Amino acid sequence: MPFKYGVVGTGALGGYYGGVLARAGHDVHFLFRSDYSFVREHGLQIDSVRGDFRLKPVQAYQKPADMPRCDVVLVCLKTTGNHQLPQLLRQIVHPQSLVILMQNGLGLEEDLAAQLPDVYMGGGLAFICSNKIGPGHIHHLDYGKLILGSHKVADSALLTQVVADFQAAGIPVELATDLRQARWQKLVWNVPFNGMTVVLNTTTDRLMASDDTRELSRQLMLEVIRGANACGVPLKETLAQQMIEMTVKMKPYAPSMKLDFDHRRPMEIEYIYSRPVQTAREAGFEMHKVAMLEKQLRFIQANY
Amino acid sequence: MPFKYGVVGTGALGGYYGGVLARAGHDVHFLFRSDYSFVREHGLQIDSVRGDFRLKPVQAYQKPADMPRCDVVLVCLKTTGNHQLPQLLRQIVHPQSLVILMQNGLGLEEDLAAQLPDVYMGGGLAFICSNKIGPGHIHHLDYGKLILGSHKVADSALLTQVVADFQAAGIPVELATDLRQARWQKLVWNVPFNGMTVVLNTTTDRLMASDDTRELSRQLMLEVIRGANACGVPLKETLAQQMIEMTVKMKPYAPSMKLDFDHRRPMEIEYIYSRPVQTAREAGFEMHKVAMLEKQLRFIQANY
Repeated sequence: MPFKYGVVGTGALGGYYGGVLARAGHDVHFLFRSDYSFVREHGLQIDSVRGDFRLKPVQAYQKPADMPRCDVVLVCLKTTGNHQLPQLLRQIVHPQSLVILMQNGLGLEEDLAAQLPDVYMGGGLAFICSNKIGPGHIHHLDYGKLILGSHKVADSALLTQVVADFQAAGIPVELATDLRQARWQKLVWNVPFNGMTVVLNTTTDRLMASDDTRELSRQLMLEVIRGANACGVPLKETLAQQMIEMTVKMKPYAPSMKLDFDHRRPMEIEYIYSRPVQTAREAGFEMHKVAMLEKQLRFIQANY
Repeated sequence: MPFKYGVVGTGALGGYYGGVLARAGHDVHFLFRSDYSFVREHGLQIDSVRGDFRLKPVQAYQKPADMPRCDVVLVCLKTTGNHQLPQLLRQIVHPQSLVILMQNGLGLEEDLAAQLPDVYMGGGLAFICSNKIGPGHIHHLDYGKLILGSHKVADSALLTQVVADFQAAGIPVELATDLRQARWQKLVWNVPFNGMTVVLNTTTDRLMASDDTRELSRQLMLEVIRGANACGVPLKETLAQQMIEMTVKMKPYAPSMKLDFDHRRPMEIEYIYSRPVQTAREAGFEMHKVAMLEKQLRFIQANY
């Protein structure tokens, strides 16, 4: 039986991935906040490098209580709103639902599982360049690969079907054998570039153009890799140099935390910085520079 | 026989200390740059918490070649101009002169001695709150203690007389038994607060008001203390907490590097950050966070 999908947080990420699933014929229910009325009237417009499309009508909701119980819930909110998740999800899951946290950082599934111990849970890492450019209007600029993984091995049967659905809809997906490893690996890039573009108020290309910050970025990456290793997560140190070389070739880019900073929105410091620092520390490894970046970011956010 | 004093760099520091010596009747010769003509005409005005005074006429010079050979030269330039020092000093010293580097940081005397191996050398650390507020116009707001030390023990006889001259002129002075220790100790404060006020574009009071940056400042101090210890320089770790408590009580303060940043002037990164990092590293201790601050500052300066 086909899944009933729920998308919580229909922005750059949820709008794109949910939109693609709906376009492929899946039964997708979208939770909106401020864009609700606009989308009811005008639909959801996705301008994509893979072809533009409009979704209309959209199964749109303003409150979780109005949504049906969903088999698969894609959580596409910023992690800064995760304290709202348990109450929100209780209204839209059933005993066999799978919740997929399409968010960056470490410890997300653990925190949610502490509140919702009976819910199957997975994580999703999106390698995508996508922005919300207006009400109900998503601009997908580049990339789009998803890495999905189970929080517990027991959840993986449901997830396999989700992977098949995404693939059939045209989204490249990998099923991670180890979600923790996938999360740590994504942090290797996110930790230096989210924080440094904020603290130094710049973009990735400028960080790469300076010997000092290119080397500092590499050192931050190495700390994350060694932090992962200390936690029993295998990542190779050569990954740092590979990611530097990839970033050197990228177009000037402002990571999502830099956009949050520019708009003086809360930054995802907790799950991208504090939890990795704390987790590595508990495993006996001090990520000195990552911890410093964390404190600088907390200062900046507190002084918005 | 009384000393002939030379002051190289007559700004907030040189103007105050040289001015006080001249007021006490010493023979003081001042090197100026842009203020030369103004001071020749109007003299040097010092507004001080210890009493205002005007020095007029001033033995002022625009070029070192015009100055007499001095027995004691107080170097009060920013260290960012130290590459000019050998050529400059050769014109105003004689074989028995003592050159005192009234500057912050590490490795200053060593660098100069490599160029001027036969010159007696000392260092001076000024604990003073003083600004230049206009041409030939110094505002001494608070404090004023000097710590003087010899670069080599052989130089200390001359220095003892300088200490006596300063004391007689009303300047509180200590003669350091170990100049390197005095320099490292001053770095314990300068390293966190010069750099952090620049990178986070703030003042000491705000850094102290945040749990995150107060703790980060303490950690930076501890790194400097441990770096010093690794270099065989004894400093107690309790010094960090003492300096934090002192800084909590201070009025909002923008260190000199923050003023340099605000005016987009070169910052004293080399001797306050790079040399301590390098010196500790050679002694086997990595100052991770100090090294990160160094790289952030270099990026900021390169992107002025």
